[in-house]
Amino acid sequence: MRTVYVIGVGAGDPEHLTLQAVAAMNRADVFFTIDKGEAKAELSGLRATLLARHVTRPHRVVTARDPERDRDAPSGRYAGAVADWQERRAALYERMLADELGEDDRGAFLVWGDPALYDGTLRILQGIRERGAVAFEVVSIPGISAVQALAAAHAIPLNRVGRAVIVTTGRRLADEGPPPGVDDVVVMLDAVDAFAALPGDGWDIYWGAYLGTPDEALVHGPLERVGEEIVRLRGELRARKGWIMDTYLLRRRTR
Amino acid sequence: MRTVYVIGVGAGDPEHLTLQAVAAMNRADVFFTIDKGEAKAELSGLRATLLARHVTRPHRVVTARDPERDRDAPSGRYAGAVADWQERRAALYERMLADELGEDDRGAFLVWGDPALYDGTLRILQGIRERGAVAFEVVSIPGISAVQALAAAHAIPLNRVGRAVIVTTGRRLADEGPPPGVDDVVVMLDAVDAFAALPGDGWDIYWGAYLGTPDEALVHGPLERVGEEIVRLRGELRARKGWIMDTYLLRRRTR
Ligand SMILES: C[S@@+](CC[C@H](N)C(=O)[O-])C[C@H]1O[C@@H](n2cnc3c(N)ncnc32)[C@H](O)[C@@H]1O
Ligand SMILES: C[S@@+](CC[C@H](N)C(=O)[O-])C[C@H]1O[C@@H](n2cnc3c(N)ncnc32)[C@H](O)[C@@H]1O
Repeated sequence: MRTVYVIGVGAGDPEHLTLQAVAAMNRADVFFTIDKGEAKAELSGLRATLLARHVTRPHRVVTARDPERDRDAPSGRYAGAVADWQERRAALYERMLADELGEDDRGAFLVWGDPALYDGTLRILQGIRERGAVAFEVVSIPGISAVQALAAAHAIPLNRVGRAVIVTTGRRLADEGPPPGVDDVVVMLDAVDAFAALPGDGWDIYWGAYLGTPDEALVHGPLERVGEEIVRLRGELRARKGWIMDTYLLRRRTR
Repeated sequence: MRTVYVIGVGAGDPEHLTLQAVAAMNRADVFFTIDKGEAKAELSGLRATLLARHVTRPHRVVTARDPERDRDAPSGRYAGAVADWQERRAALYERMLADELGEDDRGAFLVWGDPALYDGTLRILQGIRERGAVAFEVVSIPGISAVQALAAAHAIPLNRVGRAVIVTTGRRLADEGPPPGVDDVVVMLDAVDAFAALPGDGWDIYWGAYLGTPDEALVHGPLERVGEEIVRLRGELRARKGWIMDTYLLRRRTR
């Protein structure tokens, strides 16, 4: 039976890698990578570093070109646009697995952060298994996510005693506002400065960009005091590097 | 200046350890451990394994006895009971740091899972810093949390495309029901089988106990079909081992 490892490699720092991930990487015959063009060069760079540093077994690397994705779909069609793109991606993955993995071979996808958080790989592989044309087993290896890298960089807990923490997207925060009854909100995938629309006197923000990399930038403070600075910094950093990846925690002030 | 590392060591599997955690462990002069008695022998065992396997530098291990905690406080007083206990714990930690760490020494706490999730260490250290009697810097090292170990064991994503996921406690779920508008709910620290009170036909559950350890147990399925089995299994496992640690994802069925 073929095995496909989905290995979380952490959110930027090569040292985020777990011992379990190193071991799984050393069981793989083939590494599958998707060429996502420009902005994602960071992930390809990290992958290459990790393979060079930690894989001691002979292995192949197979690269496919990512199908185009409609990133400008309006809010209501976002899930639909992602679904279309995931279907094309599924066809691509299916072909790669069928062509490149022998009956008892082990393949691996190295994914950014944790495979369980805002990453399509597990879902796509599950879809391919259900279609039944290629038989394989999926093994998921957890990795340090951007959420954890953010909390660690600020040396803060994500939740308050006995309370909940929610992880959501910038789009959802912009469309729906903060979820009722939850005072600690982690936001990923924010292309719209969603934090800037919140009432500044109600929240503290802990923000981090390029976490775990040499470009790491951190800001924290009351939203009304640092919100504009973060908007400005996001613009500057995005302009300078051509892309940005950032994550933040909004913490409602409760007393 | 003294440095105190708060190092997440993962949620049960010694291979959850990150390279960054190994490196931090090898910078520490003193490891602080708290003896929490019976149930937490698992953590002491994991700590000892990790120190023996990965620390190559001379180091000391200092153990203190955990202050008693009022675990039977009624729901409304839970936060208060935790605060009391954390204050006594803070006094204990402050004394340990002052007595055991020289001016430029580095100390380390190895914490279960990720230091940012339902763990008091960072909060307590922050409190001690604010009191000002001992000066030190805190460095937090992220670790694989039980939430991630759960998702990996079931090879599932935590969130659905573009949607939020919330992490909460069994007590909160029992008191307040599922948070409105959120369809993916991770529950930790459940002493009351909170899932059993939900309408079974609305939810799927992915449950895992002793994740990452040789005793790992997994169940998943529609809540109305597997809910009772999980209640029974929790009782059995708790009786057999004397304690249980489990985590689950409730996924609202949406079509
Ligand atoms: C497609 S999601 C992938 C998340 C990933 N699976 C994880 O567990 O972190 C990409 C989003 O993750 C966040 N992110 C990933 N890496 C980051 C980093 N190094 N610094 C800040 N944010 C990061 C950003 O919010 C970005 O928009
Ligand atoms: C005090 S919290 C600590 C959480 C930890 N900091 C983390 O990141 O996983 C303890 C709770 O974590 C969950 N937990 C920790 N380790 C677990 C494991 N190996 N299997 C299942 N649940 C676990 C259980 O819900 C337990 O009640």
